[in-house]
Amino acid sequence: MHLYVLALQRMFFKKTYKQRHVFVNVKASVLPESLIRIARDYFDDARPTHDWDHVERVHNLCMHIGRIEGADLEVLSCAAYLHDIGRGFEERDISVCHARKGAQLAQGLLADMGFEDTFIQKVVHCIATHRFRDGLMPETLEARVLYDADKLDAIGAIGIARAYAYAGEHNQRLVEEFEREHGDDLAVDHTSHSPIKEYKVKLSKIKDRMLTSEGRRIAEKRDAFMSAFLERLRAECEGVI
Amino acid sequence: MHLYVLALQRMFFKKTYKQRHVFVNVKASVLPESLIRIARDYFDDARPTHDWDHVERVHNLCMHIGRIEGADLEVLSCAAYLHDIGRGFEERDISVCHARKGAQLAQGLLADMGFEDTFIQKVVHCIATHRFRDGLMPETLEARVLYDADKLDAIGAIGIARAYAYAGEHNQRLVEEFEREHGDDLAVDHTSHSPIKEYKVKLSKIKDRMLTSEGRRIAEKRDAFMSAFLERLRAECEGVI
Repeated sequence: MHLYVLALQRMFFKKTYKQRHVFVNVKASVLPESLIRIARDYFDDARPTHDWDHVERVHNLCMHIGRIEGADLEVLSCAAYLHDIGRGFEERDISVCHARKGAQLAQGLLADMGFEDTFIQKVVHCIATHRFRDGLMPETLEARVLYDADKLDAIGAIGIARAYAYAGEHNQRLVEEFEREHGDDLAVDHTSHSPIKEYKVKLSKIKDRMLTSEGRRIAEKRDAFMSAFLERLRAECEGVI
Repeated sequence: MHLYVLALQRMFFKKTYKQRHVFVNVKASVLPESLIRIARDYFDDARPTHDWDHVERVHNLCMHIGRIEGADLEVLSCAAYLHDIGRGFEERDISVCHARKGAQLAQGLLADMGFEDTFIQKVVHCIATHRFRDGLMPETLEARVLYDADKLDAIGAIGIARAYAYAGEHNQRLVEEFEREHGDDLAVDHTSHSPIKEYKVKLSKIKDRMLTSEGRRIAEKRDAFMSAFLERLRAECEGVI
């Protein structure tokens, strides 16, 4: 194997991955399996960019960040599993906000299962505010952790994979002209949008909008990787490597 | 910017990109603009993974490799622009081989435009054999260069972008379990296929199947980058980075 690949792997993995890959697993001890099964059922027809794998990755990040930040892991675990159950409704009708819809569905679901109202309200707040839009701001530590974890899944290597899968789903060009200057607005017309533009106008700003310090630390590393990937892509498209 | 990102960029770009990004442009001097326009028209409804951008990248690589290997750049340029004009037919009917169909279309197209028969036969051979299947082997230097250039666009950063766009187009999971052992067959059932499996069973072998030495040099670098990307992706999905 090339020396520079070994060097790259060492740089990125040595002090982070190997020391950090054990997640806190609160699933078995706190949440009934039936709740997770019900949550999962909402993703039967989900597209690859927002499927159950996304939920599980966000859950893992929540457990990691939540533990470091001292959050209530029971509330957080429940909120993570349920945070996107409203997404299918938004995809069928764009006037629906999946965060609000998800919060509403979670409220009913958890009440039916006999959870205490205090617990339910904490979970519902996390879900309702995980988009950080429409004046719905994350006010609790658990809500801030969920917000960070959800955004972290949009950057780094997984962010690249998801951005290009989205391009495939929506028929976007993969490599527009890299030199072209972009405006700062996210065009609704997907034919003129691309993963590179998405990075420039939106994803590159995630690292500066994190709400927890551990989220910020991870975001900076993921952003650096994503940025280097796009540089490499540009070089391959404009030159020969 | 992080030091390791600067290091990464230096490793990958310093001695390659900056010294190599000027392509030979034979388009203006040899091929009529009308031919390129006709070729481009075949890609009006193309999916992002096999669109006109792919053709232009393959053309660029052909010019670079062809110049180093001493190939006939006029034949190569023409073959590169026309190599995938049969792809739309294969997508509508999988019994059609796009290489054979493209060769047949190119034959008629070039004859109608008054190209000499010797030139046409050289171009047609490149197009017919660029898949290296069904006993159709690239026998000329130009055909070998086109084969290498076409395969190079499936690996490296652009290979990652295309593999994930394909996953989005075909509803594949983005990150299956990395530990899972794969068989060596390319399943037709796309629901069980993924970019990671595609790399393991197919794309990782491209570097060993190059037909020119410059193609092999580029393939090794692109493969190293793609392999490192997938390692990083695995680490993000299994741990926290």
